Amino acid sequence: MENGSHPHPYIPKDMILPNYVPCFLSQSNILSVYASFTLILFSLTWIFSERLKKTKVDRILIFWWAFTGLTHIILEGYFVFAPEFFKDNTGFYLAEVWKEYSKGDSRYAGRDAAVVTVEGLTAVLEGPASLLAVYAIATGKSYSYILQFAISLGQLYGTAVYYITAILEGDNFSTNSFYYYSYYIGANFSWIVIPSIISIRCWKKISAAFRVQSQTKKPKLR
Amino acid sequence: MENGSHPHPYIPKDMILPNYVPCFLSQSNILSVYASFTLILFSLTWIFSERLKKTKVDRILIFWWAFTGLTHIILEGYFVFAPEFFKDNTGFYLAEVWKEYSKGDSRYAGRDAAVVTVEGLTAVLEGPASLLAVYAIATGKSYSYILQFAISLGQLYGTAVYYITAILEGDNFSTNSFYYYSYYIGANFSWIVIPSIISIRCWKKISAAFRVQSQTKKPKLR
Repeated sequence: MENGSHPHPYIPKDMILPNYVPCFLSQSNILSVYASFTLILFSLTWIFSERLKKTKVDRILIFWWAFTGLTHIILEGYFVFAPEFFKDNTGFYLAEVWKEYSKGDSRYAGRDAAVVTVEGLTAVLEGPASLLAVYAIATGKSYSYILQFAISLGQLYGTAVYYITAILEGDNFSTNSFYYYSYYIGANFSWIVIPSIISIRCWKKISAAFRVQSQTKKPKLR
Repeated sequence: MENGSHPHPYIPKDMILPNYVPCFLSQSNILSVYASFTLILFSLTWIFSERLKKTKVDRILIFWWAFTGLTHIILEGYFVFAPEFFKDNTGFYLAEVWKEYSKGDSRYAGRDAAVVTVEGLTAVLEGPASLLAVYAIATGKSYSYILQFAISLGQLYGTAVYYITAILEGDNFSTNSFYYYSYYIGANFSWIVIPSIISIRCWKKISAAFRVQSQTKKPKLR
């Protein structure tokens, strides 16, 4: 522990975080803000997509891309560009999120290079691309599937790097097994399952488009 | 330096590599083997693709996917599963490659978690997928473009993680600037340029397929 700084709750205990300031908000405070944001966003995108006369699947996808895009840009973007979030003494929500999440993975507070890299690519590339996906689905662009496929694959690759580097470095970054399963595993679970489903769907749609194309062309070519 | 081990040529100098054995092969030996392999592979794939009556672009792509796939599986696969390559005292070619390349990026000899992760994903997923791309192009599968797009994006994501983690960790892993530019930058350059070109090409082909599809469908749907 540094002089004058609070002891931090993270593992490994000998990680040095000068001028660490403990969380102001409770876990339930943090979660309820995020849940409210999600609910408001869902309502807004649901109403908006209704007026566009989209299918139910497209309407869910519009919500997902808006949700994941804003999460990438705001939440993960803050982490990437605020290396000293753990010193924040104002109770600022985004700093509180990462102080709390670091209990599940202290590499966030410790600024592990692999974590910062994955979060950087996610915030800077995949975030804006996700909002572009909202636009692409809403307006029925021809690049809609390939864009969704590209972002989903990026999310899956990032998640793979996130977990594999942790395993190679000993997989011991959680304060206890509650945080390990709820934060480190639980909070990332949606970003394994949903991008997988979307990737498979896009793969099928794109392959089908080429089957249609080759059937249309066949009589002319051979 | 450990007792009884040779001094290693890598930076940082205080990196500990117990029982390190220096390179047996010279740089030109190593490069000429790889160049010969590339030339033989090019000849084989060029003859093979000629008989399939493929376009020139498809024939170049068949070579590229065979080349990159075998490089991923054999060269990078060896690195991933041979953590003690730097102790090899038999002059085994694949160990020599990585002893030599570590002069451009000592994170290989030092087994950096981000490097091992990227190489692991590349060797285990992208390698076999690249060989599948050879098959897909050769037989004109409908998933050919989306598969090539997926692998290229994976290669680009991996290269991004490779360089960004190095920068975040101080970008000081090369023995000198010759190795920095020839190995660390030069040897990876093809895996930035070629996947970028292929991704853009696939994006355009896939978007075009959906434009065709929507034009074909329009009269029925609206």
